[in-house]
Amino acid sequence: MSHHLRAEHLSDAMRECIASCSDCHDVCTETMVHCLRRGGEHAAPEHIKALLDCAQACDTSRDFMLRGSALHHAYCGACAQACERCAESCEKLAGDDEVMRNCAEMCRRCATSCREMAGAGH
Amino acid sequence: MSHHLRAEHLSDAMRECIASCSDCHDVCTETMVHCLRRGGEHAAPEHIKALLDCAQACDTSRDFMLRGSALHHAYCGACAQACERCAESCEKLAGDDEVMRNCAEMCRRCATSCREMAGAGH
Amino acid sequence: MSHHLRAEHLSDAMRECIASCSDCHDVCTETMVHCLRRGGEHAAPEHIKALLDCAQACDTSRDFMLRGSALHHAYCGACAQACERCAESCEKLAGDDEVMRNCAEMCRRCATSCREMAGAGH
Amino acid sequence: MSHHLRAEHLSDAMRECIASCSDCHDVCTETMVHCLRRGGEHAAPEHIKALLDCAQACDTSRDFMLRGSALHHAYCGACAQACERCAESCEKLAGDDEVMRNCAEMCRRCATSCREMAGAGH
Repeated sequence: MSHHLRAEHLSDAMRECIASCSDCHDVCTETMVHCLRRGGEHAAPEHIKALLDCAQACDTSRDFMLRGSALHHAYCGACAQACERCAESCEKLAGDDEVMRNCAEMCRRCATSCREMAGAGH
Repeated sequence: MSHHLRAEHLSDAMRECIASCSDCHDVCTETMVHCLRRGGEHAAPEHIKALLDCAQACDTSRDFMLRGSALHHAYCGACAQACERCAESCEKLAGDDEVMRNCAEMCRRCATSCREMAGAGH
Repeated sequence: MSHHLRAEHLSDAMRECIASCSDCHDVCTETMVHCLRRGGEHAAPEHIKALLDCAQACDTSRDFMLRGSALHHAYCGACAQACERCAESCEKLAGDDEVMRNCAEMCRRCATSCREMAGAGH
Repeated sequence: MSHHLRAEHLSDAMRECIASCSDCHDVCTETMVHCLRRGGEHAAPEHIKALLDCAQACDTSRDFMLRGSALHHAYCGACAQACERCAESCEKLAGDDEVMRNCAEMCRRCATSCREMAGAGH
């Protein structure tokens, strides 16, 4: 998308973090359906909740960044935590499951991006 | 609603905070429409963003509590900040406007409730 | 909450539907955690998805009503469908499970309220 | 993102529609902040509400598709309506404002994508 046609209150670093959050939300939501289908440990309450928490955390920090809100630091910081927890939960199930490994990697990338955004300006 | 018919992972304190967040979300969203209609200072970007931030912060902490997520402390803490900012923004416009005063009061109550929830268990 | 202190663009019927949607969202989200904990048929993908669909449908129609959006009819109509599906899914599991029965009843009430709102003005 | 590493319940057409919804949500949210800053007609209640409606409609249909929900047809249909209304609202303000023109185009594209998705399988 050509950025010069868009509103100007967002830095490039913020746009990258927004894109990470959006991708991470999508991957976590898809992965949740995959996990419910596999059942067993994949459908353990704490794992499904970690995926739902991460998906919602990503959508929320995305919106705080899109609005250019002063509180986006706090929401990116909390999102980084949700991403880390979800990555850990996925890694435990990644033995033979490429979908889990992919989700864990996405969550790690998003955690890094959100942690940087949380620290920026502080 | 008769609580004994509901799932059991939520404490009474958490249910009260969930109800505050839900009410605060509703009042902020209604108030935002009121402010856009009044125009002028009421429709200033930072004020409308404070109302939108608060409404979304409330919905997010509500869901983290409803899921019994370990991260609800972080989200209630961030929500308390969003509520405080919104209350301050509303109070500046409360001179002749009962709707703004009511919104500020709701935000203060929700901030208090979320701050307590954020601290619980820490 | 004293309504005369609130913004004036919402009818009493709409406020009731907003409250139903909010309650239904909460009950579905809590019930989802309960179902994941019980496991087995309670954690079947289609059932968990029905609960998540209903919770999100309720939040969305709530917001379209709170904003007084012209499209709230469409969103209340879609929400009624999500509530009906969730009620049916919960009733199949209601044998010995009061939580499921309570969730089904809440979904039926919200479906009725949303169906009326969807029809109003058409 | 390499699709073979992702969950398998989503068709390519659905992935494209999910991406359109995500982009459209982002553009509408950014554009809303731009409009509040410009003020005047750009900050008219019905215009800001059209942008908020569209952003939320997009996020909701995105999630119904990501979950592979049977109700995604209904939500994509409602989203197409929200996108059309937002496009019309933006076009009226597009005279000298590239941001509005870009938002209108994004909304038209997303409306087309959602309309196709709404019709698929019916």
